[in-house]
Amino acid sequence: MPNTFGKLFTISTWGESHGAAVGVVIDGCPPRLPLAEADIQVDLDRRKPGQSAITTPRKEPDRVEILSGVFEGRTTGAPISMLVRNTDARPGAYDEIREKFRPSHADFAYQMKYGFRDYRGGGRSSARETVGRVAAGAVARKILSLAGSVEIRAFVARIQDIGLKPGTPTHFPTLAEVDATPVRCPDPATAAAMIRRIEEVRAQGDSVGGVIHCRVRGVPPGLGEPAFDRLEADLAKAMLSLPATKGFEIGSGFAGTLLKGSEHNDAYVTKEGRVGTATNRSGGVQGGISDGEEIYFAVAFKPTATIMKPQATVDVAGKPTELTGKGRHDPCVLPRAVPIVEAMTALVLVDHWMRNAAQNKVFNF
Amino acid sequence: MPNTFGKLFTISTWGESHGAAVGVVIDGCPPRLPLAEADIQVDLDRRKPGQSAITTPRKEPDRVEILSGVFEGRTTGAPISMLVRNTDARPGAYDEIREKFRPSHADFAYQMKYGFRDYRGGGRSSARETVGRVAAGAVARKILSLAGSVEIRAFVARIQDIGLKPGTPTHFPTLAEVDATPVRCPDPATAAAMIRRIEEVRAQGDSVGGVIHCRVRGVPPGLGEPAFDRLEADLAKAMLSLPATKGFEIGSGFAGTLLKGSEHNDAYVTKEGRVGTATNRSGGVQGGISDGEEIYFAVAFKPTATIMKPQATVDVAGKPTELTGKGRHDPCVLPRAVPIVEAMTALVLVDHWMRNAAQNKVFNF
Amino acid sequence: MPNTFGKLFTISTWGESHGAAVGVVIDGCPPRLPLAEADIQVDLDRRKPGQSAITTPRKEPDRVEILSGVFEGRTTGAPISMLVRNTDARPGAYDEIREKFRPSHADFAYQMKYGFRDYRGGGRSSARETVGRVAAGAVARKILSLAGSVEIRAFVARIQDIGLKPGTPTHFPTLAEVDATPVRCPDPATAAAMIRRIEEVRAQGDSVGGVIHCRVRGVPPGLGEPAFDRLEADLAKAMLSLPATKGFEIGSGFAGTLLKGSEHNDAYVTKEGRVGTATNRSGGVQGGISDGEEIYFAVAFKPTATIMKPQATVDVAGKPTELTGKGRHDPCVLPRAVPIVEAMTALVLVDHWMRNAAQNKVFNF
Amino acid sequence: MPNTFGKLFTISTWGESHGAAVGVVIDGCPPRLPLAEADIQVDLDRRKPGQSAITTPRKEPDRVEILSGVFEGRTTGAPISMLVRNTDARPGAYDEIREKFRPSHADFAYQMKYGFRDYRGGGRSSARETVGRVAAGAVARKILSLAGSVEIRAFVARIQDIGLKPGTPTHFPTLAEVDATPVRCPDPATAAAMIRRIEEVRAQGDSVGGVIHCRVRGVPPGLGEPAFDRLEADLAKAMLSLPATKGFEIGSGFAGTLLKGSEHNDAYVTKEGRVGTATNRSGGVQGGISDGEEIYFAVAFKPTATIMKPQATVDVAGKPTELTGKGRHDPCVLPRAVPIVEAMTALVLVDHWMRNAAQNKVFNF
Repeated sequence: MPNTFGKLFTISTWGESHGAAVGVVIDGCPPRLPLAEADIQVDLDRRKPGQSAITTPRKEPDRVEILSGVFEGRTTGAPISMLVRNTDARPGAYDEIREKFRPSHADFAYQMKYGFRDYRGGGRSSARETVGRVAAGAVARKILSLAGSVEIRAFVARIQDIGLKPGTPTHFPTLAEVDATPVRCPDPATAAAMIRRIEEVRAQGDSVGGVIHCRVRGVPPGLGEPAFDRLEADLAKAMLSLPATKGFEIGSGFAGTLLKGSEHNDAYVTKEGRVGTATNRSGGVQGGISDGEEIYFAVAFKPTATIMKPQATVDVAGKPTELTGKGRHDPCVLPRAVPIVEAMTALVLVDHWMRNAAQNKVFNF
Repeated sequence: MPNTFGKLFTISTWGESHGAAVGVVIDGCPPRLPLAEADIQVDLDRRKPGQSAITTPRKEPDRVEILSGVFEGRTTGAPISMLVRNTDARPGAYDEIREKFRPSHADFAYQMKYGFRDYRGGGRSSARETVGRVAAGAVARKILSLAGSVEIRAFVARIQDIGLKPGTPTHFPTLAEVDATPVRCPDPATAAAMIRRIEEVRAQGDSVGGVIHCRVRGVPPGLGEPAFDRLEADLAKAMLSLPATKGFEIGSGFAGTLLKGSEHNDAYVTKEGRVGTATNRSGGVQGGISDGEEIYFAVAFKPTATIMKPQATVDVAGKPTELTGKGRHDPCVLPRAVPIVEAMTALVLVDHWMRNAAQNKVFNF
Repeated sequence: MPNTFGKLFTISTWGESHGAAVGVVIDGCPPRLPLAEADIQVDLDRRKPGQSAITTPRKEPDRVEILSGVFEGRTTGAPISMLVRNTDARPGAYDEIREKFRPSHADFAYQMKYGFRDYRGGGRSSARETVGRVAAGAVARKILSLAGSVEIRAFVARIQDIGLKPGTPTHFPTLAEVDATPVRCPDPATAAAMIRRIEEVRAQGDSVGGVIHCRVRGVPPGLGEPAFDRLEADLAKAMLSLPATKGFEIGSGFAGTLLKGSEHNDAYVTKEGRVGTATNRSGGVQGGISDGEEIYFAVAFKPTATIMKPQATVDVAGKPTELTGKGRHDPCVLPRAVPIVEAMTALVLVDHWMRNAAQNKVFNF
Repeated sequence: MPNTFGKLFTISTWGESHGAAVGVVIDGCPPRLPLAEADIQVDLDRRKPGQSAITTPRKEPDRVEILSGVFEGRTTGAPISMLVRNTDARPGAYDEIREKFRPSHADFAYQMKYGFRDYRGGGRSSARETVGRVAAGAVARKILSLAGSVEIRAFVARIQDIGLKPGTPTHFPTLAEVDATPVRCPDPATAAAMIRRIEEVRAQGDSVGGVIHCRVRGVPPGLGEPAFDRLEADLAKAMLSLPATKGFEIGSGFAGTLLKGSEHNDAYVTKEGRVGTATNRSGGVQGGISDGEEIYFAVAFKPTATIMKPQATVDVAGKPTELTGKGRHDPCVLPRAVPIVEAMTALVLVDHWMRNAAQNKVFNF
């Protein structure tokens, strides 16, 4: 089931960039959760194209329709099917890519895998697939908000070489701070510089990448499993399953490898009436399991593959040719990826919450 | 099934550090594969403790016994159960950690999750769990070697701040080059410096971490799935499921975020009679699917949590106390992690090979 | 994933009887399969209500819309999302069952499980859920027809006590023979008696059940797995997952328990240039695996729970009350269940075909 | 994962009839469950060969060894690996079946599927595989006994044409009543007749089959899932996954198809302070979900395939030949199948209990 994610709170996405619609089915959602289309729409609106001057001008209202699993304003426990129609598809814009493989896109790999591909706008490989993830993630977030006081906040920490100072922001950023600018970096000065950089590269017909940070507080200890389904392993999979991602690190990450054990270890202390750690280089997980500290991780996004400059490539017959990007594309995917990172994080947490409870909280021995 | 990995070539590990044994069951192994215990043992010997002066002196022969699924020297298609007895367990050495939580170990998280824990040597959270992974990985490697000419080579690229120059080795390193020194870095001069560093920190009762690189050649295009089960997502999960890992990057990784799209994209060309790419910043995957280029990735390992220095912590009652590491531990886990990284890589590849074939090669439409 | 069936060719159904729509997502469908909505519609038309005088008069055109996974008339390997709008929903007809538990319906069990239920027409528990199964089954049948010469034929073998003579029909019945009458029994005289019986009980406001037989020829040896995923185990699960089913038997079934081993065993012989069996009491499976003989099994369906007679029950507060069926219901579900049994059979076979190939045909050792 | 059963309480069996050992790994067992080898052994002793004059004289003590997941007498939440060594293997006794396909055995199907087979005593297809199921089932039973007051009682209801009167026993039979005779039929007179029949057919070198009934009381309402994973569907799969089974029916089963709806429906009433049903033709499930009434079902077992009479067959080259059963076999598998049916039932119930709790009991909306 390559298009399914999760074990107990399971989502299955479907749909192509320029097909009739994209959507998702959630299976395993707890019953009695208050849920309306408006709960979903608010997150889709943060992901949708055309939000600002630094994103693609493709106009998609991305209006969600809940087709099942909700009755009289509450979930029933049955599958929740959600659908978003594609409205601003312009298949004509994609004639050229029927014949030529776009560099650093999935066209060639799909052709080799399936012997056939829906070339319109990347088809299934388009980031438009993440509409379903964000819709499902909105449901997961609602569960988390009711189940405890879990807060998930992602933000753009670096665009190319323009980034937040290490260790900042020192406080847990608010949603208002993140969304204050279209680039979704909570530091205003850095955000302004990032926006200028994105505008510059767009003017050049080029693109940039960067790094998103995600911080999560309020997660109880005990989520995550030993061995393969560690919390950080499932977060890593979730993030590397997003288009354009090339790296993941949790806690001290790659930089932590420069420290000695005596510098890296997090000493246990008593704080706020519970056992916690004095430092948090572990990033909120120990041995694959949440320990009650803040979870934080970073995700690397490569520069957008579609650029408005001529590039060498080959056609489907293998003959050398040239291609220049057309269509409406983001010069930088990170601002719109912020809600997607949050959605995937919420999905991982709800799934592990349910798994943990099933094994460890159901029976009283 | 937290202790199971893979969808078609599935492994389930079991066992604790100081229990009777550790082991693994492989389900879904193709029949007729020539297989003997010696095929497994060679990989276990690269992982086992006590190999050299820079690893733990715990003495475990780690002798594997195949209990099922192999008949007259070939696999039958039935589950392959493999068992390794624990012989050098010294439970007495662990009396103190029954009462105190070791910093940056899983003790506390397990206690919170399960309300009960096997404290002997970390129990299930011990890296001894990876014995089963390496045994299963050896079977996967044998399949890959017979199925095509896939080669997987992991090696230590950096210990703390002592590392290989970026882009080196320029050739695909041989197994002999990697295993020429106990630190498993294929450059002799760097390896020597690494060994000195490990000996230094061990003399201080301290520990170090670093980065392992893994390179894979010979993978056909088409492995990996769109959406969630991307090849890089499953590799990321596999690596972050290993004890002590904090980061993963594929291809250009975090550094690639400093480039513009025009600098980062891999142009398609015709080479060696096939379509390929002129550069390989993508790391052998596009849209989650192998493209036939070399796959390469990096994994960050934190410094070993157990150190021979006094550390502040709390006891199980939450009272502040102090703990000094005892027992026999690696001051640096990376040399022994090299075969584990290779094993996990082989498992991911065989599983995706079978999944890809089932969907795309079985029927001829 | 309670609403998902299959391991490699996976279907996930969603939707409620009187919600906006019902549908299904197929994940894992092989690419390049020629597929159009007409391929699906033909099977949905055999399942839809209002086909004949002996089925419910509810009028649903059950027009399928393929939303993804098909491009230029062929599957792409991406998920196939299919949707059927509900048009003839009359929620008003169900006011009473909001307050009272219908005998031998799922209302009470859903209420106890979820603490909340969509009471309109049974919601998720309605047989309307099988629309998605039949749509997905049509795709599976198309694969089977192209992959080999597999033929699946279900038919009504008994209505209450009116049944086909044991061992008849002696030939593999044609689709035309089955569909010659609305009751879908291939023997005209028996069919006529069955129809009379159904009309009689309907006139009484009552209902009847019976037995469906299903025969499959052309299945190659080797489908099915040892241990748990035996072909007959997965067929049994598929059939018992259908609404109103109470029993399953394969080959000689319950009657076979009256024979001695010497009478029951199927001797191996050479026939048609291959190894086969002289008799076929095993029903085409040995040890859970197809042996190349015809597969045949029987499924018991209870009488429709909704009847137009007053019945004693309790209301949601537990107070005794009375209920008389309203709405539009089938006095006998079997005729419309015939294509559903075929659909589930096709789904099981395609899934096992792919699983078998992945393990046993991909590598050449 | 053909050799794995369950979604949350998962068991994976391994091992061949005449290999080194058979075993099972349980993944997902709740922690803190008191568990000792003696808890397992008592169930294995009911399954083991050589118990009485009417079973195979093969002598296997079937002594279980728990290798992991249990510490200081309680489960830890880690995988529980259990192993039983094969001791009375006599490979020499199986030389003939290397060359000839045994009628109504899996030899031929395995050969066709895998192109290779472990012919010793049926290898993986032997009922010896069920040792692991019974061991795991003993753990599941212990959970059920502590979680509530669930009782599972299977017994032999019919041997060939010698059976209990319909509707008997009228009370829930005790374990002592069932185990009072080696045939495990709780009615002494019927049991005596059954034993005589088994002895007769054995004297003829022949074999018999029959029907096992299983009754379960104390199951709370709400177990089982809509759509595919209905409780009866998973029970059907569990039973049809057992060697030699040919049929399954729940509640009124095949006989219920003779009734009209007005005769078959179970009226809701208030009883013992709760909502229940006046009759129980449904067998304790409605719409796939337990309703709190007694669950009861029947399983058909064919006569043992191995008989001591000459039978026609073909050899591996397809040449006609003759085969006479050798080795030590049960003339009737039902008495030893009783604990296996109970084990599978317990496994299904624990798994659904955990699944139900995870979705419906974890969050309080």
